[in-house]
Amino acid sequence: MSEQSRLRHVVLFQFKDGTSDEKIREIEDAFRALPSEIDAIHDFEWGTDVSVEGKADGFTHCFFVTFASEADRDIYLPHPAHTAFGARLRPHLAKALVVDYWQRT
Amino acid sequence: MSEQSRLRHVVLFQFKDGTSDEKIREIEDAFRALPSEIDAIHDFEWGTDVSVEGKADGFTHCFFVTFASEADRDIYLPHPAHTAFGARLRPHLAKALVVDYWQRT
Repeated sequence: MSEQSRLRHVVLFQFKDGTSDEKIREIEDAFRALPSEIDAIHDFEWGTDVSVEGKADGFTHCFFVTFASEADRDIYLPHPAHTAFGARLRPHLAKALVVDYWQRT
Repeated sequence: MSEQSRLRHVVLFQFKDGTSDEKIREIEDAFRALPSEIDAIHDFEWGTDVSVEGKADGFTHCFFVTFASEADRDIYLPHPAHTAFGARLRPHLAKALVVDYWQRT
């Protein structure tokens, strides 16, 4: 590829019915803290679904994490800060979907 | 927000069993052509799933389209080039998922 490709890590969440807005905010903030805790994260953004096509299948949150290499992803996945986040998330999670791709144009 | 936020449009596809590699390549190329046909697309990238967590739910392709505004998305969705792409895609599509979000940090 002509320029440095990045490895994109697309994470979608649906929370369980009845999860409070306060709890969802806590989980959002905990994910947002990961880039400061895990150097292997190259870039990070997130947001909540505002699609208008009715094809979100119940997912309300998208976290978009970028790595510079597979090695950095392999540091991230088992990182203690990431697994601690997962433990906080799991009781409130209805479902998650994860797709990774090397960016192409 | 402190800087210009963008509207992200995350599109996931799973193709029907038996869809040929050649047909998939045609569809990839047709999606890749949309930015040159629709000025409302601010940025575009895509890739095929290389995740290692087993949470991709059968999705193999991610197209990541960026708009500068809701107005631009509203131009894109019914644009003739987009609907023509949809007509080419549909016979080969097992399922699609679409989430839009305003990027936050």
